[in-house]
Amino acid sequence: MPPAKRKATHQLTKQHNRDLVLKTIFENETISRAEIARITKLTRTTVSDVVAGLLSGGLVKEVGFGSSIGGKPSILLSLEADSRYLIGLNLAQNKFIGAVVNLRGQIKETAEIPVPDGDGQQALKSVYEILDKLVKTNWKPLVGIGVGAPGLINTRQGIVVNAVNLNWQDLPLARLLHERYDLPVSVLNDSQATAIGEFVYGDHNSDGNLIVVNVRHGIGAGILINGRIFQGDGGGAGEIGHVLAQEDGLLCRCGRRGCLETIASAQAVLQRAQSLSSVSEFPTLDAIETRFLANDPIARKTVLEAGHSLGRSLGSLVGALNIRKIVLAGDMTCFGQPWLDSVQQAMTRAALGRMAQETELEIGKLDYAACILGASAHLLLDGYSLLFGSEN
Amino acid sequence: MPPAKRKATHQLTKQHNRDLVLKTIFENETISRAEIARITKLTRTTVSDVVAGLLSGGLVKEVGFGSSIGGKPSILLSLEADSRYLIGLNLAQNKFIGAVVNLRGQIKETAEIPVPDGDGQQALKSVYEILDKLVKTNWKPLVGIGVGAPGLINTRQGIVVNAVNLNWQDLPLARLLHERYDLPVSVLNDSQATAIGEFVYGDHNSDGNLIVVNVRHGIGAGILINGRIFQGDGGGAGEIGHVLAQEDGLLCRCGRRGCLETIASAQAVLQRAQSLSSVSEFPTLDAIETRFLANDPIARKTVLEAGHSLGRSLGSLVGALNIRKIVLAGDMTCFGQPWLDSVQQAMTRAALGRMAQETELEIGKLDYAACILGASAHLLLDGYSLLFGSEN
Repeated sequence: MPPAKRKATHQLTKQHNRDLVLKTIFENETISRAEIARITKLTRTTVSDVVAGLLSGGLVKEVGFGSSIGGKPSILLSLEADSRYLIGLNLAQNKFIGAVVNLRGQIKETAEIPVPDGDGQQALKSVYEILDKLVKTNWKPLVGIGVGAPGLINTRQGIVVNAVNLNWQDLPLARLLHERYDLPVSVLNDSQATAIGEFVYGDHNSDGNLIVVNVRHGIGAGILINGRIFQGDGGGAGEIGHVLAQEDGLLCRCGRRGCLETIASAQAVLQRAQSLSSVSEFPTLDAIETRFLANDPIARKTVLEAGHSLGRSLGSLVGALNIRKIVLAGDMTCFGQPWLDSVQQAMTRAALGRMAQETELEIGKLDYAACILGASAHLLLDGYSLLFGSEN
Repeated sequence: MPPAKRKATHQLTKQHNRDLVLKTIFENETISRAEIARITKLTRTTVSDVVAGLLSGGLVKEVGFGSSIGGKPSILLSLEADSRYLIGLNLAQNKFIGAVVNLRGQIKETAEIPVPDGDGQQALKSVYEILDKLVKTNWKPLVGIGVGAPGLINTRQGIVVNAVNLNWQDLPLARLLHERYDLPVSVLNDSQATAIGEFVYGDHNSDGNLIVVNVRHGIGAGILINGRIFQGDGGGAGEIGHVLAQEDGLLCRCGRRGCLETIASAQAVLQRAQSLSSVSEFPTLDAIETRFLANDPIARKTVLEAGHSLGRSLGSLVGALNIRKIVLAGDMTCFGQPWLDSVQQAMTRAALGRMAQETELEIGKLDYAACILGASAHLLLDGYSLLFGSEN
């Protein structure tokens, strides 16, 4: 084989081995070289070589001795969580929130800014403003920016295809941010980012498949299959909020009628409560929460009916995918167990008994941070090259 | 590394390279060694070594010369389609159908037998009977048996967990067949097998993601993600027939009410037409087909309403997965374009405009053979080792 190709192949193998070792270290609190060799099926020599590189790069540290059966005790390795930092952005809340996170997903510093109303240019400026602030902090080196944005996203091209609330259409966000900050950038749908965040950091004990449903102003899901986010052919996988749930239902912001969002989202609950009572009685979701806890009949009715509609939709997902763990995230989770029960009950009624019974439904643990953590973790999903900067 | 491990690693690399080369030959009508090297990124020497083994094993043949830019013309290789045979079984029709197929999915010989009604032991005997017949034919060597069976299947363990119509519960079908025929056996859900068949042999131009919906007595789907069948955590992915489609609807054979099957399956159409008219008017689905073609209003109403209900369910799938190609298979496809139009229309209404418009809906090309071909192809999905018998 020609020298150039041989070199390329050799380089690829090296990267592959390094990623494999690093992934194994990521996935364990502490681990010995021998254990890494056993798990990765690499030779001990290869593992030692790779680890030497990681130690000298500061990504990994030796943290003590483990027990060993006979022979000398083995040295334990651990990820140096604060050797690199990532920025994660959540653009799907009622304010933009950004954070610097370390390699273990610990948030070191956050920044937030109100969302400008429907002004696309201003929204982009706000993104710059929040990032300008975060890149100037002392958390260094920064190795990438991950963005969770609402709407339909083309992640491969880094384009926000359509985000109604921000008034962005075909915005090449990844390119703009890369040009401004000279860092790798990943852009994905906020519900997909939330799903990755819950999967990686939410401690949900999933084998690799997980559905996370984000129920807030709108409704979106993120679906992990074999440990990877599934985006579908057009990036829109998880867009369950705009599936028809009620014939001739209310008008949705997408222009059609009866979408799931119009009956099961936080916005739908607010509007329904207001229409059954008055805006002054239920000015905000917080007001509904307060009244819900006080057993107000209108608050309970609207919230539990919304849960029921959501559950029925989840029944379709269970039937189609037979993924046994579904995590609910977003504002509506503030209604806790009673709401969760209504979702569960309707879901069980809507899917084949056996499959529904095996499905665990739970509330996410990370709140708005799931999106930030997931967006930043997504930067590392295809390998860890960016942790190594120019040396690669 | 210890010699045993080094040997094992070497063996794995050899198998991996061989599978890679064979896959490339499978995917091309004819191909040169140089092209294989380019596609697989293996060295020319490795490719030549592997090809030499495939030639001597009779799996591949040289079929002539291709053009080459400068230099001497390259020798073209092609799969020897009739060098090995597989058996595929479809146990989900109103009769059991089996076939011997070659490596290009060409059916060489079929056998069929009526399905015994609800007698599990007799059904198993019928499977033996059909296989006894097929293994005795002259198509040799036979390298495996693939089964597409109705109901919930645990493919990894080769167990039919529950197949109501055949009265099988927790039947270790793969073990039973392996013991009897001493061949590798794969068992999977018939709709999943149908999906693999359409994906591999149906010429649907999919990039790797495909949904195949099998609408017959019951309704089931098979979902391919990145070229592999997705079975979910419990093997039940694609069980869309038992998702609630109509509150307080008709009683389903699963014991619940209003499942999609009760309004959109061939059986549902038959029952509906009979209830609107009489059993003597519509004794069979064939009778409905005849009257449908003659524009009989009851036949048209029942068929198109069934299509509408199916389409609405497909809208949920489109929203959840954003897979752009959906293939419809099974008895209901006999109603052709008008039925397909009703499905398409309801699907488009039920999912986000942009995503639904990008989704192509078409009728499968392989009829009942899709299940047979898919079940046999599934034997080779994890590698081609079984083509090499004991030499491996």
